[in-house]
Amino acid sequence: MKIKRSASLLPYRLLFLILNTFIMTIFLQSGTIAQKQNPLVRVAKLQIDSNQLEKYKAALREEIKTSVSIEPGVLTLYAVSEKDNPSHITIFEIYANEESYKAHLETPHFKKYKTTTKEMVKSLQLVEGVPIALEAKSKP
Amino acid sequence: MKIKRSASLLPYRLLFLILNTFIMTIFLQSGTIAQKQNPLVRVAKLQIDSNQLEKYKAALREEIKTSVSIEPGVLTLYAVSEKDNPSHITIFEIYANEESYKAHLETPHFKKYKTTTKEMVKSLQLVEGVPIALEAKSKP
Repeated sequence: MKIKRSASLLPYRLLFLILNTFIMTIFLQSGTIAQKQNPLVRVAKLQIDSNQLEKYKAALREEIKTSVSIEPGVLTLYAVSEKDNPSHITIFEIYANEESYKAHLETPHFKKYKTTTKEMVKSLQLVEGVPIALEAKSKP
Repeated sequence: MKIKRSASLLPYRLLFLILNTFIMTIFLQSGTIAQKQNPLVRVAKLQIDSNQLEKYKAALREEIKTSVSIEPGVLTLYAVSEKDNPSHITIFEIYANEESYKAHLETPHFKKYKTTTKEMVKSLQLVEGVPIALEAKSKP
């Protein structure tokens, strides 16, 4: 009888084990980026042809959403336009490491973005950043 | 007998319910910022007295860690120095809304940071950003 009872609990124990592993994984992922590894941070400053601004923003939005959702090493892409100067755009980019960044540049969606927006971008300045603190709520 | 078996499973069912609620909460929190609400985004560009750079970075690091950990409306503070120009610092800031930003300015830790670093900051430019896309891994 005892054995039978134990066996009937097995699925629950397995379920508990699976859920626990899952929760641990989430917790391990939730450390700050800076603690996890040596991320590559870039700040891109762009000036866009104001006649093509809406088209540019649509292309950028698509590229960002695709990159963050399908590339494991693209951690953060935050793009904003300046409120008082909407054709000036800043993109704050965090990649897991140098390799992830290089891989990103070779993806079809990034290449498509570069081709589509070539005539829209008037200037592009890329600055490599050395992290001082990268803190965010346990998921922004 | 049937009733007894059911009762012995009750703790597992409760546990399952609690874990499920917990997991759902994490998933609900993991939406992108842009989808959650209308965040206030600021890009701060600073130039620091290079003789006081290390002291400045320590003060900034402390202020950032405190703000993100104890202020519910401070979602993200990412600070980097330029690799090729270390006294030039960019801070990418995301607040839940305008009120959270105003509340942040009144906190003792922010005021302490402002006082401590007053003589270290050579220039400060604050730019309000209008989000185009704010995408990050389900916790960066």
